[in-house]
Amino acid sequence: MNEIAQAISEGANAYLRRQYKVLAIFVIVVGALIFVFLDGETTIAFVYGAISSGLAGFIGMRVATMANVRTSQAATESIAKALPIAFMSGSVLALSVTGLGLLGVSVLYYIFNDPHVIHGFGLGASSIALFARVGGGIYTKAADVGADLVGKVESNIPEDDPRNPAVIADNVGDNVGDVSGMGADLTESYVGSLIAALTLGALAYTGKAEALLLPLMLAASGIVASVVGSFFVRVRKESSLHKALNIGVYVASILVIGAAFYLTTQLMGDINLFYAILTGLVAGILIGQIAEYYTSSKFKPTKDIVTASETGGATNIIAGLSVGMQSTVGPVLVVSATILLAFRFGHGFDSLISGIYGISLAAVGMLSTLGITLAIDAYGPVADNAGGIAEMAGLPENVRERTDELDALGNTTAAIGKGFAIGAAALAALSLMFAFSRTVGTLGDTSLINPRLIVGLYVGAMLPFFFSSLTMKAVGKAAMEMVQEVRRQFKEIPGIMERTAKPDYKRCIDISTSAALKQMIAPGLIAVSMPIIVGFGLGPEALIAMLAGAIACGFLMAVMMANAGGAWDNAKKYIESGHAGGKGTPTHAAAVTGDTVGDPFKDTSGPSLNILINVMALVALVIAPLL
Amino acid sequence: MNEIAQAISEGANAYLRRQYKVLAIFVIVVGALIFVFLDGETTIAFVYGAISSGLAGFIGMRVATMANVRTSQAATESIAKALPIAFMSGSVLALSVTGLGLLGVSVLYYIFNDPHVIHGFGLGASSIALFARVGGGIYTKAADVGADLVGKVESNIPEDDPRNPAVIADNVGDNVGDVSGMGADLTESYVGSLIAALTLGALAYTGKAEALLLPLMLAASGIVASVVGSFFVRVRKESSLHKALNIGVYVASILVIGAAFYLTTQLMGDINLFYAILTGLVAGILIGQIAEYYTSSKFKPTKDIVTASETGGATNIIAGLSVGMQSTVGPVLVVSATILLAFRFGHGFDSLISGIYGISLAAVGMLSTLGITLAIDAYGPVADNAGGIAEMAGLPENVRERTDELDALGNTTAAIGKGFAIGAAALAALSLMFAFSRTVGTLGDTSLINPRLIVGLYVGAMLPFFFSSLTMKAVGKAAMEMVQEVRRQFKEIPGIMERTAKPDYKRCIDISTSAALKQMIAPGLIAVSMPIIVGFGLGPEALIAMLAGAIACGFLMAVMMANAGGAWDNAKKYIESGHAGGKGTPTHAAAVTGDTVGDPFKDTSGPSLNILINVMALVALVIAPLL
Repeated sequence: MNEIAQAISEGANAYLRRQYKVLAIFVIVVGALIFVFLDGETTIAFVYGAISSGLAGFIGMRVATMANVRTSQAATESIAKALPIAFMSGSVLALSVTGLGLLGVSVLYYIFNDPHVIHGFGLGASSIALFARVGGGIYTKAADVGADLVGKVESNIPEDDPRNPAVIADNVGDNVGDVSGMGADLTESYVGSLIAALTLGALAYTGKAEALLLPLMLAASGIVASVVGSFFVRVRKESSLHKALNIGVYVASILVIGAAFYLTTQLMGDINLFYAILTGLVAGILIGQIAEYYTSSKFKPTKDIVTASETGGATNIIAGLSVGMQSTVGPVLVVSATILLAFRFGHGFDSLISGIYGISLAAVGMLSTLGITLAIDAYGPVADNAGGIAEMAGLPENVRERTDELDALGNTTAAIGKGFAIGAAALAALSLMFAFSRTVGTLGDTSLINPRLIVGLYVGAMLPFFFSSLTMKAVGKAAMEMVQEVRRQFKEIPGIMERTAKPDYKRCIDISTSAALKQMIAPGLIAVSMPIIVGFGLGPEALIAMLAGAIACGFLMAVMMANAGGAWDNAKKYIESGHAGGKGTPTHAAAVTGDTVGDPFKDTSGPSLNILINVMALVALVIAPLL
Repeated sequence: MNEIAQAISEGANAYLRRQYKVLAIFVIVVGALIFVFLDGETTIAFVYGAISSGLAGFIGMRVATMANVRTSQAATESIAKALPIAFMSGSVLALSVTGLGLLGVSVLYYIFNDPHVIHGFGLGASSIALFARVGGGIYTKAADVGADLVGKVESNIPEDDPRNPAVIADNVGDNVGDVSGMGADLTESYVGSLIAALTLGALAYTGKAEALLLPLMLAASGIVASVVGSFFVRVRKESSLHKALNIGVYVASILVIGAAFYLTTQLMGDINLFYAILTGLVAGILIGQIAEYYTSSKFKPTKDIVTASETGGATNIIAGLSVGMQSTVGPVLVVSATILLAFRFGHGFDSLISGIYGISLAAVGMLSTLGITLAIDAYGPVADNAGGIAEMAGLPENVRERTDELDALGNTTAAIGKGFAIGAAALAALSLMFAFSRTVGTLGDTSLINPRLIVGLYVGAMLPFFFSSLTMKAVGKAAMEMVQEVRRQFKEIPGIMERTAKPDYKRCIDISTSAALKQMIAPGLIAVSMPIIVGFGLGPEALIAMLAGAIACGFLMAVMMANAGGAWDNAKKYIESGHAGGKGTPTHAAAVTGDTVGDPFKDTSGPSLNILINVMALVALVIAPLL
């Protein structure tokens, strides 16, 4: 077991080292540009943000690669012993994410007392997160898809079988993509929402420091509340896994609500701002529940996908896409209601900008319990890895069953976590877009009845499509290479199947690594360069429209992809648990098709979109003085 | 042969009769509402529009069901004899579409001299088109998918084999969906662009009737040019099919350009408006060429899908989605450039509204040669049907080869035709949105920096997703029923396979018919009711934003779906022609998966979206006086 864990840990370390080397070049180039065209303070903040984001990803990965083998070991005893270990490693990630983010924003605010400098921090954190999410997502899904297509479908060996040459790459991928990439991702969502609130607080309440302290202190209370909530995550009976996690979240939420009430009334003397925060918190929970409805096999949508699988892969895909598209309706209505309500509670009818401050507070409220929701989200890949180790080390079958149970729950919690991140990004990026309109030098007609804005809107709406096409293609291509390599090894290395020869794991790791590093560049550059091109080419008004188009379309695509992917995955798991014929039937094969398409949907393309819109909004804010 | 053609014709007639019965109720109800809340003139125009659209669909279907068997007969001699028959039947559809549309708009303009009345005509034509497109699309794809999945994939009998119980339904579907639905669809695109130009001409050049005559006379010249161009469609050598069609289009285009030059300089004395029209014509051709690049097996994208099929259905789907999403980039840039240029040529920097008149002229220019481009588009299903009849009647194999060749070309021309329709809708709906902003009673802040507009934008962007989810689901469900019915017949009716017993075609026709009639209601009602809900609920400003969001997102989704669907289809055809292993291999099975998913993409959900955005813009315009 230790040997396997060692191999996974080494692979993950090696990848992160190479990724950070590439990103260092990016940070140096962009940092130099910021220094030349803007100022030294923003440059420092940018580098600091980039390091914070990278660090959060690194810490999460380290802890996860240590916790996986311990979780397998604990699962040999009972699920009640395994859950705390997996969950605690998630907590470490969650607390470093929230801690590093809050620390960075607070320190920079304290030293420079200038929101514009903090935008540099956000840009650093977000751009690194984008590369990490895209790179990690390509890595993990190339390995996962490649391993599954040959191993499970063609050669009929179980998942995580040590005979599969891609198995180590697959498990490394869980760490660099699902843990490290997600850590960087949520750091940036968290930082993005704080920055939006600080910027709008400064614009709406000039000279009133309390308006800026409010989001910072709310975030700090959220961290404390999450830690307290974490203590409530304990499993008494084997059947109450979900309940144990829910209790933790409820405790943390109640504590945050109390803190929000205290802070808004004491600091700002305004109960309406409390309602704005509450709106965000409730919206987050609602979006999470909608995600659960559309992705859990307990409900109709996923069951429909199971039924559709009986007539083959094509109807499975049609059903999954349809579920994903339909699942956008609820979140859009929830976010729309949140915008209108939070705007109203922020006194938007008296002053536009203070209303938008209300919207930004809602985003902070939505993410305030990230310390525990992210922990729940991150424990999934740890459990997944633990299962892989158990399988590879040949532990008894009931160990695998226990880790599978932990993992299955992780699928739904992951969809919920993505819902939070996407919802918060939709609100935060929107607030940043409004902040941009206030900080840009001269602003002409921003009416939608202006063809230049319509062009900006079209281009913005196109970007999530373009971005997703690149990331999907990258996964598809790398997965195909992986499939061919695994097929080649099965053919050319005799004795793999009889376990007399070892497969060449390293070649598969290399394929994932080089695909990830090469293919993450283009999507990342699009995100950073498009606001600059449109801002200088068509003017700041068109840039606002571009951001609005990208936020709207990106939000929809992200929700669609996350939920379709989750639903496909769980439909397959539901069949594997013995329904509709069970494993090995044509129905199961059809479900695997959907699951495989869902992989890049939910773990590469979809979750990168919320970073994309934040990065673009932050680039706009950083270049605002130049426009 | 006559017996089969008779069965197809009867099925199509029966469906259309039932469809029109349902739609009559819709027309009566909505007409009554318009009469009560607005006026009698608009009511008359609405009913007239609905009848025109229905009539265009009916004529096209009648001609197509007469031409199919004649084409099969002619194909027994040569392709040079078959093409003119198929093409001529397409021409009849095209000329009735353009003729009825232009006639309606002109007559109403002549009688009432009030653009608002003409909006009623547009609404009638568009809403009937929406139902026809959605209903026909569900009908044809349910039958097609169902027939293919069991017949081709499971039972290994060729396409259009008379032993397949769904084969008549499939061929009926070609007529009610691909001919009749498309006819209604393009009537409304054509009418929509004319109405936009008339409305904006009246707004931009008050009292100058020439500004309204210009689009009408341009459209009339386009019809004449198309007829002349049609005479040039003749096949000399068997290999020059594509060339023959292209020559026709080029001749028509050149004639229209000449007419546009003459009309703009003589009527308006303004060469700049000629440039605006030219921009639209060129943009249409460019969008068509981009569609050809992404969907023809001669180019890299479709070849990539072929390669991806070698590793299975999942990578085939990932590659196809990626191609579809990437194919949006070019059309967005072309449409954006068209908006900016046509706005400029319309003197938009002097007067906003006259610039938008320029944009609406570009849309008319884009569709001016519809009389021939639609003929090319519509001959595909006729050839498809002819092939089906040849197969079922057991004609020699070379007949089928000839109709297949005609049909394959039809796939690419269909993608090009869809490009025209989508591009024109993006421009026309945009112009209608601007017109709405001018005709609505009181209009507040339409700046994008207004949360209510952002909410409108989000809701609007969500509608194409919601709409597509409903149409995809409808096809998926009906196809599943069809699959089960076909499987049942194969099992319960002994002797089908040995051709000693006849399958029960009627049951399959019933499944398609009732699915289409039932499932077309909800998407249609969404389109008609959403502008009313948002307009009265959130105000006209939010309604403008909703339209903008729906246009942007709908345009993108429509392009994505049309091109992904076309590429999947041609990738499969390319493999069937002997590449990558050819028919019967796992690679071919993977390609069939993509093709099946692509069916509702390209023939149900995608092409309905341009009608969706036009219907919503027209509803907004019709209710404008009440807001």
